[in-house]
This record gives sequence, structure tokens and C-alpha cells, in this order.
Amino acid sequence: MSIHRANPLPRASSALSATLALLLTVAIAPGVAAQTVAITGGTVIDGTGAAPITDGVVVFADGRITAAGPASSTPVPAGATTIDAGGRYVIPGLMDGNLHLFLNLDLETLILHEHRLHDIILEAAQIALKTGQTTVFDTWGPRAALAQARDMINAGEAPGSRIYLAGNIIGFSGPLGPDFRESHAPYVSQAFVKRINDTWEEKTGRELLWMTPDSVADVIRNYTTLGMDFLKYGASGHVDMNLISFSERVQRVIVEEGHRAGMTVQTHTTSVESFDMAIEAGVDIITHCGISGPEIPIPMESIQKMVDRGIACSVLPITARRLAALEEHNPTGTLTPYMKIGAINRANMIKAGAKLLMSTDAGIQNPVLLAESPTLASDTVDSRVKLGEGHFNALVGLEELGMDPMEILKSTTSNVAEAYWLDDEIGTLTPGKWADIVILDEDPLASAYNYRTIHMVIKEGRTVDLDALPVDPIISSMKVAR
Amino acid sequence: MSIHRANPLPRASSALSATLALLLTVAIAPGVAAQTVAITGGTVIDGTGAAPITDGVVVFADGRITAAGPASSTPVPAGATTIDAGGRYVIPGLMDGNLHLFLNLDLETLILHEHRLHDIILEAAQIALKTGQTTVFDTWGPRAALAQARDMINAGEAPGSRIYLAGNIIGFSGPLGPDFRESHAPYVSQAFVKRINDTWEEKTGRELLWMTPDSVADVIRNYTTLGMDFLKYGASGHVDMNLISFSERVQRVIVEEGHRAGMTVQTHTTSVESFDMAIEAGVDIITHCGISGPEIPIPMESIQKMVDRGIACSVLPITARRLAALEEHNPTGTLTPYMKIGAINRANMIKAGAKLLMSTDAGIQNPVLLAESPTLASDTVDSRVKLGEGHFNALVGLEELGMDPMEILKSTTSNVAEAYWLDDEIGTLTPGKWADIVILDEDPLASAYNYRTIHMVIKEGRTVDLDALPVDPIISSMKVAR
Amino acid sequence: MSIHRANPLPRASSALSATLALLLTVAIAPGVAAQTVAITGGTVIDGTGAAPITDGVVVFADGRITAAGPASSTPVPAGATTIDAGGRYVIPGLMDGNLHLFLNLDLETLILHEHRLHDIILEAAQIALKTGQTTVFDTWGPRAALAQARDMINAGEAPGSRIYLAGNIIGFSGPLGPDFRESHAPYVSQAFVKRINDTWEEKTGRELLWMTPDSVADVIRNYTTLGMDFLKYGASGHVDMNLISFSERVQRVIVEEGHRAGMTVQTHTTSVESFDMAIEAGVDIITHCGISGPEIPIPMESIQKMVDRGIACSVLPITARRLAALEEHNPTGTLTPYMKIGAINRANMIKAGAKLLMSTDAGIQNPVLLAESPTLASDTVDSRVKLGEGHFNALVGLEELGMDPMEILKSTTSNVAEAYWLDDEIGTLTPGKWADIVILDEDPLASAYNYRTIHMVIKEGRTVDLDALPVDPIISSMKVAR
Amino acid sequence: MSIHRANPLPRASSALSATLALLLTVAIAPGVAAQTVAITGGTVIDGTGAAPITDGVVVFADGRITAAGPASSTPVPAGATTIDAGGRYVIPGLMDGNLHLFLNLDLETLILHEHRLHDIILEAAQIALKTGQTTVFDTWGPRAALAQARDMINAGEAPGSRIYLAGNIIGFSGPLGPDFRESHAPYVSQAFVKRINDTWEEKTGRELLWMTPDSVADVIRNYTTLGMDFLKYGASGHVDMNLISFSERVQRVIVEEGHRAGMTVQTHTTSVESFDMAIEAGVDIITHCGISGPEIPIPMESIQKMVDRGIACSVLPITARRLAALEEHNPTGTLTPYMKIGAINRANMIKAGAKLLMSTDAGIQNPVLLAESPTLASDTVDSRVKLGEGHFNALVGLEELGMDPMEILKSTTSNVAEAYWLDDEIGTLTPGKWADIVILDEDPLASAYNYRTIHMVIKEGRTVDLDALPVDPIISSMKVAR
Repeated sequence: MSIHRANPLPRASSALSATLALLLTVAIAPGVAAQTVAITGGTVIDGTGAAPITDGVVVFADGRITAAGPASSTPVPAGATTIDAGGRYVIPGLMDGNLHLFLNLDLETLILHEHRLHDIILEAAQIALKTGQTTVFDTWGPRAALAQARDMINAGEAPGSRIYLAGNIIGFSGPLGPDFRESHAPYVSQAFVKRINDTWEEKTGRELLWMTPDSVADVIRNYTTLGMDFLKYGASGHVDMNLISFSERVQRVIVEEGHRAGMTVQTHTTSVESFDMAIEAGVDIITHCGISGPEIPIPMESIQKMVDRGIACSVLPITARRLAALEEHNPTGTLTPYMKIGAINRANMIKAGAKLLMSTDAGIQNPVLLAESPTLASDTVDSRVKLGEGHFNALVGLEELGMDPMEILKSTTSNVAEAYWLDDEIGTLTPGKWADIVILDEDPLASAYNYRTIHMVIKEGRTVDLDALPVDPIISSMKVAR
Repeated sequence: MSIHRANPLPRASSALSATLALLLTVAIAPGVAAQTVAITGGTVIDGTGAAPITDGVVVFADGRITAAGPASSTPVPAGATTIDAGGRYVIPGLMDGNLHLFLNLDLETLILHEHRLHDIILEAAQIALKTGQTTVFDTWGPRAALAQARDMINAGEAPGSRIYLAGNIIGFSGPLGPDFRESHAPYVSQAFVKRINDTWEEKTGRELLWMTPDSVADVIRNYTTLGMDFLKYGASGHVDMNLISFSERVQRVIVEEGHRAGMTVQTHTTSVESFDMAIEAGVDIITHCGISGPEIPIPMESIQKMVDRGIACSVLPITARRLAALEEHNPTGTLTPYMKIGAINRANMIKAGAKLLMSTDAGIQNPVLLAESPTLASDTVDSRVKLGEGHFNALVGLEELGMDPMEILKSTTSNVAEAYWLDDEIGTLTPGKWADIVILDEDPLASAYNYRTIHMVIKEGRTVDLDALPVDPIISSMKVAR
Repeated sequence: MSIHRANPLPRASSALSATLALLLTVAIAPGVAAQTVAITGGTVIDGTGAAPITDGVVVFADGRITAAGPASSTPVPAGATTIDAGGRYVIPGLMDGNLHLFLNLDLETLILHEHRLHDIILEAAQIALKTGQTTVFDTWGPRAALAQARDMINAGEAPGSRIYLAGNIIGFSGPLGPDFRESHAPYVSQAFVKRINDTWEEKTGRELLWMTPDSVADVIRNYTTLGMDFLKYGASGHVDMNLISFSERVQRVIVEEGHRAGMTVQTHTTSVESFDMAIEAGVDIITHCGISGPEIPIPMESIQKMVDRGIACSVLPITARRLAALEEHNPTGTLTPYMKIGAINRANMIKAGAKLLMSTDAGIQNPVLLAESPTLASDTVDSRVKLGEGHFNALVGLEELGMDPMEILKSTTSNVAEAYWLDDEIGTLTPGKWADIVILDEDPLASAYNYRTIHMVIKEGRTVDLDALPVDPIISSMKVAR
Repeated sequence: MSIHRANPLPRASSALSATLALLLTVAIAPGVAAQTVAITGGTVIDGTGAAPITDGVVVFADGRITAAGPASSTPVPAGATTIDAGGRYVIPGLMDGNLHLFLNLDLETLILHEHRLHDIILEAAQIALKTGQTTVFDTWGPRAALAQARDMINAGEAPGSRIYLAGNIIGFSGPLGPDFRESHAPYVSQAFVKRINDTWEEKTGRELLWMTPDSVADVIRNYTTLGMDFLKYGASGHVDMNLISFSERVQRVIVEEGHRAGMTVQTHTTSVESFDMAIEAGVDIITHCGISGPEIPIPMESIQKMVDRGIACSVLPITARRLAALEEHNPTGTLTPYMKIGAINRANMIKAGAKLLMSTDAGIQNPVLLAESPTLASDTVDSRVKLGEGHFNALVGLEELGMDPMEILKSTTSNVAEAYWLDDEIGTLTPGKWADIVILDEDPLASAYNYRTIHMVIKEGRTVDLDALPVDPIISSMKVAR
């Protein structure tokens, strides 16, 4: 249980929590390995921030870690299977604090796969797992399909990254509404537009912006019963990124309702003022906290307030090479100038000691659409939004800002777990946690590039067959006609 | 065999023709009834223009008519099954000289059904058959899918109207190109746009407009090997209806190549000058010959030239009620003023004794899109473009112009057969023709509304199970959400 | 001096105020009549809310009222010119609390008259004066041109309504930017777009939405030196009317800076939440306080808070006939449903005793564009936005909501003066005020339609030659080609 | 008088012609110098194709050339003023066979200068004259304003190039119609759109495309009374460059009506087939005869037919450097591939001995719009459409194709005069012609770049004050804001 929550509201009781955990364990039983396994000989970096243990041992059974420490003090249980990690690096499974397992909002995908969105979500969860991400946090997507994929994975019916999901961004429209691709809507039937938007919005769309705090509270109270894992709301607009979606008192209501339902609450934030308002509203996480427009960085005073209140910050780092590519090949892109200011913001947050969560906004990249992209020349340079690639580039982006290597590791492991109130379950290689483990060939603390040197991924104690993933790809396997 | 062809080019030799007919008979064997059948007691109107025969008899066996005439002189063969048509009217199967079995160019249909266009075409052919049309002429569509449906129907693998098809309108773009819905193209992948356009164009698109006569001849010569039944080319533009697509000498080349391949050739014509150029180019049929823009009717001199050269005219009649609805509910529609001039043109053609072919430009109406149509109020009044309805309304439209009832019947039977060089096979109730027969409850010569009173449809000697059609509808069965 | 200001900030000292008043008097000297005049025999309704005085007398000299009361106790000074108002009604000059003297944002007007916007503003001020409005409040427009017209009128160089002006709505773009006609911008030079937008924005445009409170304060402090009369800022968006433009703390900063500069501050407000935020920010006036979107009225609690804090509410009333016309002829217009909710809001505000200011958002109607309007059928029914007509219709709109006739009179006279801190100068027929007087043929308290029965308009003691106005019309005199 | 007209129709009788010439002489009297002048000492290249005369003499008086030849045989009249051209080159005044003196179709220019288009046309005529062009042929523009400028120049009321004008391109829309900037039309009043389009179209717009030959003949017969100098019609579309505007028989009618009115007739031609149709229709000039789309050059057979019938070809040459710039900076521009094919066409025409007329399609370049052009990088490389620059670059373009230097000179002098039936008046330095003379510092036959080395321009016997031109520029003097 997280002890650093800024918000004093009672969280779901630990009794309930335990019950849920039990149910969860049962639910996923088919996917959990019962056998005791020990990883030996490697350098263990456990995600807590503790110094690396050369010749470390990690032991797990029934999917959970039972012991971890120096070989000298951590005996390998008799009868345990051993995995030799000699010369390698053993770290917690990686996490992305903010991605979108379904981000294929083009009409062809929506029309063709309207009734199997969950299959694409599984594909995404498998790409994530294949690249070391044992848990991912989906912060905008079709709730029902995401939950279906999440539950299938948890039940062992399909491989994939463990999914936690928000559903809609409260106050935003669906994919074919004004916050996204409304321009496409006249080219399909209104019936289709409505179905798609409803699938995302679930009555939490832009109509909430007209409402009183009480009305919003009622809506959210109903909404939280639908089975998402956390809440996210729009603090600023998606199109007009400097406009504010909700008044401060409405934001407080949303946070209260989320907490009342035992869930963390985060914002979509893109401006200096919406950043500060989110802090005052008591959120747990500020998503893409580094975005503040084309000219003005977030004041240190606001950053410090965020740090003081223990609010986590889900950042979207890019590499210097990517920034240069954008400036060369897409200089008039709306977001290009934001990226420069974003780098200043991220540097300031590192300086202030903010709890950063590595995040990417990534989704499955459609090869056909990529090939047709008018900004292709920059799209392929250190892409951050390409699922399976983006997190590697984002970690390098953090390193380039001078962030401490151990802090970088935490930004994609324990920080994420804590921010999402999941540090009882995941995030470190400590007894009791899920045995979500990545073994690297090279030292991630020596260079962030080394996160790419994945040797083995273990999720819930089971070794993942990386070559088999994704199992039945729909999007990522599309072929570009010559 | 038609004897009134304007063009002196040798047609496919009758030997070859006979061979083809034989092959065809074999091919469709499974669908042809072997038994001898006699329709008795009804009034027979045989489509030749001869006076109705009260108490007439039509006998057929092996799918073909063997005898037809007054009961007094037409014995019912021993052992024949009889169909009692007492009090009813026996006429040849109806035909539409110009429709589009696949006209569902909306993105949802194209994307969802890209690889089963033929299934939608079968649905359309079944709607046509259900409403008395035993043969239809598809003058623009996806050739390969149309041919697949045609062949399945001819082989008895699926029920449906007999299909003759043109494929592309030579010189026109595909559905997502400049002649149709280019405005939709930016909202899907360029790869999809290309695939769809290629499916229609088959290298006979707008690039031909740049070419010399020789180059066009080469293209058409290759094109005619693909298996369509007749050719159609754009004489005027589809968007800019008063611009001319091909020079006269190129038009002549296209006609020559079509005739060389044994096919009739027709134009898409929409202006006074393109009408006259088409005549000079030697076409067999002028499609929507009644359209000449918003102000100026076609001069009688041009109409007379068409008549003198025996060129058939595929008209698109509408009812007065429909014209009134357009003027009331859609007065600014581009085509609304054309409709008034069109009525003048059609009246002039009737006066001049032109060989008219009833046609509709109809396709399957999508109920969802209809319900969303901004011009809904006029769309539903005596629709001509709704497949299965349009031909009934078009026939009434001809009647309202004062056309002789017998001529109206010919416009949807023998005229069509002759114009398409198919009068050896279909179009009249005379021995040797396919037994394509419609039995009506009421007299079609008394009122054109009576074509709706379909009692029975017989195609190639087999009674059609009307209630079973369409078999597996895709488009026409779509439900409008309340 | 207003005594009901919610905001405790020191206003411009009365010494300074007196100096300004003096300068003002001097400045406008050429336009002020020196002679003593008495209006006698009419029913005087002085705008204070006091009962009408039958056989009342109003005396003025040097442009200011020197006495007003019953004939019995108000002697006509010896040598005074008298105006016989027998059988008529003498009321204060009318005011519009929110209009736009330049609202001709079409490209033709902007391009043709870019360098003489003030001439169009004079035309507007003359149309306003001709229809009884002796003072108007321009709440969005080109500041420099408005000030030029204001100063010319005040100096007696041109006739016209007395103008108070805000300049830009702080936080909004100019006419060719995203808050207005950005869609037109690609069709003219970027240089022109920039010039026009700069003319309105004067560095207070949308870039402020990215800024910190301190930066905004700096901007506003500079801006307030430019010579406007009051401030207005966007509390909600102009396009996305339910998004919020400024955080509450930034709103407070703007209000403080306005008050520091001695000016009233008002908001552009269009939603429930921005309404409440504006109150909390301490504004003096909420403009179009009745707009809260398509579905939800403003809660009584918020309205009561506005009333308790003495904040004035600038309403935009329409007649029932106008609402019916909109619903019939423009049912899909974005604002049509807002109008219904607006009527509820206005009724609630009347019930709560809010200080309402009659306002119209009117500008000069361009006859050519009106004739071409696709919503012409509804545009001409009881128009509120047509300058010179709108205020008459708005007053009837208030009457239809059951508002007390005396309160209606105040909404267009003393309420406006008080809300704008101008009750020392205008708004009632009491000694010391400008002699701005309207004489009506019929009783405005009997029916709001009677405001149209203007017999005479007196401004600053001079009778206005109504027939001569507007003097050199540019827009209102345009001719529609047959 | 041209003797090589393909068309046998009687031209305006020479008696009438003489009368017109007389009237013309009288009309321009104020601008014509009476004094006798001799240019001596230079190399005279007289435009007839005859070998250059070193130490040649050209004598003129009353605006017309009285003698030209070698000094040895051409005495300088006593009392003549002499101009020393020692070391220089004396050639006929240059001509552009196809330009547009008003091509500033942007909304700002149209709106601001709607009622003074002729002033901009004068500016253009002065830029042309300043750069050596003593005569220009305006092939699309506002007829009345062009005629006004033409007449002012001819009357000596303003300096400028001698103008011959066509008015509208028959069958094309005006500037805000479908052939040009229809996309801009929704952003201004329909009344303005109509006025502008009517100013160009004068009832010869797209409605002609619907008409019968007889109706078109009637329209043209009326149109030719309006005072243009020659006719031009659209043979192919302006937007859809491969569609055909008029049937061959309508084209013949237009040519006949033009000839009947004593005028040359030319086409706007952009495709292989419209090129051939124009020849068959009997035109005198084919404008931009080098354009035939993106892939297929004009067949040699068609080119030869043009040559055989003595039809002139108004070409639009560009330099190799310009083509390279287009391919580098604007590879997706519609016209870029056309330019490559155009170079092939022009080379073939040179080979075939076609009578080429140098032309540019140039108009006044607006510096503000140029600075904002998204294709700026290529727009400034050897521009052909910039009036005052384009003709220099076009002449170099011809040289790069290997054209004989003397032929190049003729393409911009005598060829143009002959093609327009003006070889009695202009085009060569021979007695009786207007004394339109350019003196160059360098030999134009040595390099086409040398046409830029203008030392002196003489028009109708008067030395032009080049520094004073243009006199009151409106467009070319616009300043780009930093």
C-alpha cells in the first residue's frame, strides 16, 4: 500500500484489497507457474533504488517472488529450477505509465475491426510484453474491449502485458468527435460515428463540460461501477491545449469520486495553469506533465508543489535526435515547439526530484499508414509513439536529460507501481510481489540503450516465449504494397 | 440477331455465337428445368408489339420457349405441367437497360466488404429478380466481382437476375477518384484508395484522356479480353457534365474496338454536344440520353439522327410526383433542373419514335444511409434509383409522358434485347428464347402501375421462389437504430 | 460613484476622477449646448425607479440636468427655452450594455475599409443614437478605431452615441483567428490576417492562455495604458463555449489589474462553471450571463451569489416570436437550443432580483449579406443583433418574461450606468447628470413596444437631428442587386 | 498582311482596315513624335530573318519607320536627330504572344481594386514596356478594363506597351468560378462573386458548354461587337486539363464567327486531342501548344499538320534550371511533370519548323503573396510568369532547346505580328511599320541572355523613359512586412 498519497481520502480497505487480490489470483490461476525457480549468477537491480547486487539471486514460486538478495545470503531452495543469469542483469518487469493499446483510429481499422477491438488490444499487449513491459497502463481507450483483453490475459487465456485501464478521458469526446477525428465523421454514417463515440465516451464525454459539480459527481459515480482500474479526466482540452476543461471545483469532485471508488485519478494536462489546477484538485498522477505549450515552461513553484504533495508525473521524453528530426522535417508541426519546452520542463522536474513515470502515449504502428505519412522522414527517428520501440527511446530521452540511472530504472518500475497504488503487487524484486522480471544482456545503469538487450522476460513466474509474440497480429503485420 | 445495327463492322460470327450459346447452355445446366410446362388461360403479351392474345398459351421446356400463341392454335403438349394464368397477364421477363448492382460506394461498405463485392452483387441480382427483372445490364461496376456473380447465377449456383456487364466506364475514374468520391479519399489509406480504384478502372481510367487514338486503341484491345459483355465509355464528364471526355476520333476508335470484339458499345452522355458526337462515333446505345443539362433540350435534329441510325436510347424516366418532390425539397440540387429538361427530351424522343430502353441507374438502397440523408423528404418519393422499386416508377414515368403502352412494354423487354444484340435469346415470348416470363395480376397495358402486380416470375423455365429473395442480404437488410 | 462594488480595490481617486470629468467637459465643449432648456408637460420617468411624475419638468443647461421633478415644485428658470412634452413620456437616454459597433467581419468590409474602421464605427454610433441610445458599451472591437470614434464624438466632431469601449476580449483571438473566422484566413494573405488580428488583439490574444498569472498581470498592466474604458476577458471559449479560458487565479489577476487601473472588469461567459468562476474572480459584470449551453440552466445558488455580491448581469433577451422562428427555420443552429435554456436563466435572474443590463450583441447589419443568408427566414424575425432594432426587441423580450416595467427601464438606463461605475454621469434624470433624454409618444411602462415611439432624442442637452443619421453610411446603405 | 492564313474566310476588307488604321493613327496622335530620327552605327537585326546589318541605319518619322538598311545605302535625312547605337544592337520591339496584364486574382486585390482594374493593367503594360516589350497580347482578362487601358495608351494618355486583348476565354468561368478560384467564393458575398465573374465572362462562360452550335454562334456574334482585338476559346478544360470543352463543330462555329468579325482566333489547349481538334477547327494560333499532360507528347503527325496549315504556336518555354528547381522543391506540383513533356513538345515543334510565338502567361507578381508562397524556393528560379522577367527567361528556354537564334528573335517579334495578322504594323524594322525599337548593349544572337541588356526602348518613334516606369505602381510596389 502506498504511503505517500497526497490525498487524505480513505482508499479501498485493505480487507477488500486482499479479497480482490485473492480473486485475482484465482482468476489468473491458469497462467501462474507453481514451480519454484531461482535466477542466479546475475547482477540484480531490484527497483527499490538499492545498489545493484552482483551475484544476486531471485527466487519465485507460484508466480510470486519469495526471496531476493546476494547469493551469499539468499539460498536457492532445494529442488528449484535455476536460470543462469551469469554476466547479465536482472531487473523488474518494465512498465509504461501511459500508453494506448488501441490507438488505430483510422477509419479502415475502426470499420473493419469494430467488433474485435479486443483482438487488437491483445496484439498490443503482446508487443508490449515482447519488449519487456510486463505491465502497462492504458489511459484512453475503449473500456469494454480493454477490460475483455485484460481479463483474458489475467485468466491466462492469452499472453500479454498485464493491463490496467482507465477507459475514456472524462470530458473528452470519442475518436470521431471534436477532440479527435471529427473531420472524418462526415465520410461515414452518423450511426457508425455514434456507435464508435459511445464506445469510448460511455456518457462521460464533452456534455460534462456543461454540467454543475453535482451533476458531474452523479455521472462519475455511475461510471466508476463499470470496471476500469483508474480514472483519468481532461484538465485541458485535447485540441485547444491551452483551454481548460473543468473548473477547479468540478475537478475536485471527479477526484473525490475516483478515490471514493478506490481508484487513482489522473489528468490529461497540457498547460501551465491546468497543471497547477490539477495539483490543487488533488490528483494522484499528472499525465504528460511536461507539456506546457510552445513558449512558457512550467514555473518551478508549481513543480515544487507537485513534488511536495507526492503527486507523480507521467512524462513523455524524447531523444535529442528525435527533436532534431522534428525540427528539420516537420518544423511547422504544432507540437514541434512544444517538444523544446517539454525538454526544459522535464529537466526542471528531474532537478526538483519529482516522481517521474516513464510514458510514451504509444500504440500499435500501422505500417501502411506509416509508409504514407507526409512526415515520414521524422516519424521514424527514435519514435516514441511506436509501441514496442517507444519506451526504449523514452528511457534514452531521460538519460540525455542527465537523470540518474537508478532513477530512470525506477521511472519504469517502482515509481509507476507506487503512483498507481500497486506497490504491493509489482514494481520491485522483493518478496510477495509478482515475479515480473526482465533479464538484460547489458547493464541498464551503464547506458539506457541497454534496456533493449532483452534476454528473457518472465511474467508471473513464467518465461515468456518472445518469438511467439504477437500471436495473431492484425495491425503490425500489415504489408505495404510495393 | 439485330438487323438494324448502324455500324457495318463484322460482328462475332454466328458460328462462334452458336458455340458460345451451347457452352452457355451447358454451363447453366444445373439451373435449367428440363420438364415441359404450359402457361394457360392468361392474356399473353409477347413483347413483339403484337396485340395481346386473350386465352393465350406459352409452352416451354429445357428452359426455352417452344410455343406461344392463342389456345386455339397452340396445343398444350401431352404430359406438360400447366400453370393456370386465368385472368392474369403473361409478359416477357422485365429488363433494366442500365443499373448498377454494386452502387454502395460509401466507405463502410467498401471497407467491410472489399473482398466480397460479389455477394452484394448477388443480393442486388436477387432483388432485381424478385421484382420481375429476369435480365439486367450493369453499366458501371467492379468487373471481376460482377463476372463472378454473373457466372455463379448462370451456373445455377445462386439465384438472381441474368447479368450482362460492362465493367468500368472507359475514361472514368474509380469510386474514390475524381469522377466520384475523391473527397473521401483523404480519410482512408492511399493503399486502399488505389486498390478500390484499380478494381474498377482496370487501366481504363482518366489517363486515357491524355492519350492518342492509337494508344487508346491498344488499351481497349487489351481490355476487351477481360470478359465483360459490352463496352461503355464516357462521352461527357461525370462531374463536369458538360465537358467532353474524348475527341470524336478517339470515340470512333473505342467503338471500333468494341465491335471488333463482338460487343455493343454505349456512352455515358450528358450534354447536347456529347449526344451528337456519340451518334457520329457510331455507338449502339446512348445511356441517359435524356440528360442535357439545366437549360437546353437536345435539338430534334440530333434526336432524328439517332433514330435514323437505329441507335437505342437508354432513358431515365421519373414521375411527375418525383419531380415535384425534388423541386419542393431539394430545389438547389444540381440535378433538379436537369430533370425538367430531361422530361422534355424524353417526350421529344417518344415523338420521334426513338428506340427507348427503360433504365434506372438503380442500386441497392442502404437503409441506414437513407435514413440519414439530408434530402430524405424527396429521396423516398417514387424513387428511381432504389433497386427493386425504380423500374416500376420509371415505367410510370414513361406513361405520364404519353408513351404508347405497348411501346412501354417493349422498352423494358424486346427493345433492350435488340439494343444489346441479344434478341436471339431474350426479350419476347417466342420460340427459341429463354423462358423468362412474368405473370401479372393486372393488365400492364391498362396502367403502368400494374407492373407491380407480380404474381409469378419464371426464369429459364423455372419458377422463382420470390419470398426467398434476397437470400443472404447484406445491405438491404441493415437496420436503422432507433 | 457606485457604492456596491464587490471588489475592495481602491478605485481611481475622486480627485483624479474630477480632473478627468473636467477634461472631458472641456474636450466635448463644442458639442454641448450652453443654453437653459426645460422640458415641460410630460410624464417624467427618471430612471431611479421612482414613480412616474405626470406633469413633470426636466431642466438642463450646459449639457447637464439642473433640475427635475413635478411642475409644482420644479420651476422653469426664467429665459429658458421650453420643449413641450404634453401627453408624452420623458425618460433617460437608452443604453446598450453590450454591443459591437464594428461587427462587419466579412472579408469585403475588412479589406475595403481596413484603414477607416472608425468611419463604420461612427455610422454605428449614429444608428444607435437615432434609435434613442445616447450611450453604448462596445465590448469587443478594434480599440484604436473605437477610441478615435469615441473621441471624435466626445469632441463634437461627429454626432453619435457616447461610446465606452473595451477593445479586445482578453484571451480571444482577432477576427481572423481561431475564435472567429479562421476558416477565412487561407483565402487572403497572411500579412493581412496578421494585421487584422493584431488590430484587435494588441498582444492580449490566445497566447495569454499559456501564461502564468504573473505574466498575464504584466501583459494586462501594459494593456490598460492604451486608453480603453473598461476591461473584458474571456471566461469561456468563444468556439468551444463550454471550455474555460483562464484558471480562477488568472481571472483574479485580470480583475485586479483592471481595478488597479480604475476600470470595471467583465467576462465573456457561456457556461455554468465559467459563470461561477467569474463571480469568484470578482468581476463587476457578467456578459451574456444567460447563456449556459443547450441543456442545463445556471443553478439558483450561483445566481444568488451573483446577486449577493452586487454583480451586474448583461443579458441578451429575445422575444418568443424570435425563438419560435429559430426553432422553425434554423432548428439545427448551434445556438437555437441555447436560446430556450437562456430564457429559463433570464427568468430565474429576474426572480432572484439580479441587476440586469439590457444588451444585444448588435452590430450594423449588412443588407447584402443579410439577403444572402441561408437562415434569412429566421434572421429577420425580431432580430436582436441588428443595431437600431435589437434593443427594442430585447426590451420586449424582457417584458415577455414578466419583468417589472420599471425594472425594464432601469435595465437600459440606471442599471447600466451603475454597473459601469458611471452613475455620477448618466443613467437618471437627476441634477448633475448629462442631459441625455428621450421623449416617447407612448408610455414605456404600459408596453415595452412603446420604446419604439421615439419623439425626440436629446444628448448632452442638444436635440439630435434624427433624420440626418447616419450621416455618411457605408454598410447600412448597401444596395442588394435585384 | 499575313498571306498564310489557313482559313479561307474573308478577312476584314483592306479598305476597312485602312480606315481603322487611319482612325488609330489619329487616336494615338498625342503620343506620336513628328520629328525625323535616325539610329546609326549599330548592328541592325530587322526581325525579318535577314542577316544582321553591321553599321545599319534605321530612320523613322511620325512614329513610323521610313527607312532601314546599311549605312552605305540608307542616307540619314537632313535635319534628322540621330541616336548613336555604335557597338549596340538594334532590333524590333519585343512582344509577348500570351500574357495576362491582370492576373492578380487574390481576393484582396479584387476587392480593393474592383473599380480600377485598368490602373493595374496600366502598371502591367508599363512593366512590360520597361523591359522591352512594345506590344503585348492579353489572352484572358477583364475586357472592359483592358480596353480602357489599351485606349488610354493608344491615345497617349498613359505610357505602356501596346495592348491587344481577347477578353474572356470563351467557355471558361470568371476568376471566382469553377475554372479558377471557386474555392474562394464562399468567403465573400455572392453578389461580389457574381460581379467579378460577370466582368470576365460577359455571357461567354461555362453555360456555352451546354449549347448547340447555333446558340453558340449567336452568343459569339454578339460578343464580337464588344471591342476586343482577337478571340480565344477553351479547347480543353482549365482545371481538368484533359477534358474537352467544345465539340469540333462548335469549335468551328467559334472560329467562323471570329473570322467573320475580322479577328484571329486562338485556343487554350492542353492535351493531345484538343491540340488536334483545334487544328481541325481552323484556329490561327494554339496557345501553350506545348502542354499535353504528364506523360504523352504530342504526336509528330499532329505537329506537322499544324505546320502545314500555317497555324502559329504560342509556347511557354522554361529554362532547364527552372525545371530542376520545380523537380526539387515542388515535385508534387500538378504541373511539374507537364514541364518535362512540354520540353519534348517544344523541341519537336522546333524540329518541325513550327511558327513559334514566345509567350509567358505572365502577370504582375505580388511581392507579399510571393513571400508567403509555400513553393517560394522554386517560384523565384528563372520565373516565367513574373511579368518583366518571364520573357527574358522564356527566350533563354528556347535557346536551351537548340532553336536558331534568328528564329528566337522572330518568335518574339515578326512571328507574333504575323500570327496576329498585324504584320502590316509591327514586328520588323521595315518602312511603314511602327517605329517600335529596342537597342541592346549585347548581341541577342550570341546569347539569349543578352535580351536583358536593354539600352533604349523606342515606341512609336518616342524614346521611353524607362526609369519612370511603372508610373504609379499598385501591386509591384507592395512591401513585405519584416
